[in-house]
Amino acid sequence: MSGRLIGVGVGPGDPELMTLKAVRALAAADVVAHFAKAGRVGTGRTIAAEHVPPDAEELALWFPVTTEIDKDEPAYREAICSFYDRAAAAVATRLDAGRVVAVICEGDPLFYGSFMHLHARLAARYPTEIVAGVSGMAGSWSAAGLPIAQGDDVFTVLPATLDECELARRLCATDAIVIMKLGRNLPKVRRALAQAGRLKQATYVERATMAGAAVMALADKADDGAPYFAVVLVPGFEQQR
Amino acid sequence: MSGRLIGVGVGPGDPELMTLKAVRALAAADVVAHFAKAGRVGTGRTIAAEHVPPDAEELALWFPVTTEIDKDEPAYREAICSFYDRAAAAVATRLDAGRVVAVICEGDPLFYGSFMHLHARLAARYPTEIVAGVSGMAGSWSAAGLPIAQGDDVFTVLPATLDECELARRLCATDAIVIMKLGRNLPKVRRALAQAGRLKQATYVERATMAGAAVMALADKADDGAPYFAVVLVPGFEQQR
Repeated sequence: MSGRLIGVGVGPGDPELMTLKAVRALAAADVVAHFAKAGRVGTGRTIAAEHVPPDAEELALWFPVTTEIDKDEPAYREAICSFYDRAAAAVATRLDAGRVVAVICEGDPLFYGSFMHLHARLAARYPTEIVAGVSGMAGSWSAAGLPIAQGDDVFTVLPATLDECELARRLCATDAIVIMKLGRNLPKVRRALAQAGRLKQATYVERATMAGAAVMALADKADDGAPYFAVVLVPGFEQQR
Repeated sequence: MSGRLIGVGVGPGDPELMTLKAVRALAAADVVAHFAKAGRVGTGRTIAAEHVPPDAEELALWFPVTTEIDKDEPAYREAICSFYDRAAAAVATRLDAGRVVAVICEGDPLFYGSFMHLHARLAARYPTEIVAGVSGMAGSWSAAGLPIAQGDDVFTVLPATLDECELARRLCATDAIVIMKLGRNLPKVRRALAQAGRLKQATYVERATMAGAAVMALADKADDGAPYFAVVLVPGFEQQR
């Protein structure tokens, strides 16, 4: 008799943005797993802190240190794949023992999250459930009080890792936009927004719904420092009427 | 001393997918407002039923009946605008009296929701707060157990109201896709997906996280009947490796 795997979305940062279902899923779990950088406590675990049962086994899934490997090198992909294989095996051991394993996921489990790599390796073999969560980007536009898309808007999420031309082209071809994975890509994102004529409409948000949150017009942001999880928001055309 | 306006996201349908913050915001509200078709109880109000305080004033905002007016007629836009003007005025009366008005929003308040029309009319004049919610589409991909986007995927939301060529073109130009507002547009959506070579990857979801939910490969769906709020999901390319 095998256990059950639950991907538990814990929302964008404010613990109050956890769902009732997430709270109950954690309370009933035998094992609570969470991703983090090696030796650190991950944001997801911090968000859920009050709801992890004291008697549950905690399983920290620590990402390998890959800062010295270029992301285009095969060695990078190998290190990451091998990490997810090991993480999935550690979870599978608990599932084989009949335990309920809740995996804490920042935001929503199936929307740009690490959990998806466990899901791909385990969902076909074990009973699996997903508890949807408030996404990080919904936390961002809510904190900014910025209606993002409505009516017949086309809404697009663009990773800032795209090259500048491609970003500019796509910025022209949609209504509402979220640009994610900013980090050191911010100068490029500014240039692409300017090329597309949409810089004036862009809002910069970091650490939404958490301590130290910042919201400002991107044009007013004096420096180019940005955390990886910061986003730029451009509302749909219908908003501007 | 004016009151406070709160847009409260109540999630995609399952009351358990309400956030702790939404529950508390409703509990503390003097007035609970909600949109619905004339004479009906809206889905949002149904989701939140257990959390509307018995002593709160309820303000039902009933959409005008516009089924006999073509959506391209100026009369349609006028009827809708005038409705939102009156709804905003009704809410403003309560805010002027110093009351806290919570507006129930299905899904997330600032992502394709009716609340955005109140926000546009009131947020500059009154203290306004947004409680982010789990979106309807997150409810759909979670119910389907379908990882939708990851890594450097471009993610696009397309309204099924776009014309067939435009849909097909955009389906080719992105990784992960949600097609919303299906209803009678489903046959057109099928054709556009086939043109774009993505019909086999498409999943159809209706009433996700609610009673009577249905999830199936779109290719296996025998008929073309679909509710307006049903969606088609196509996962990003990275998923298919």
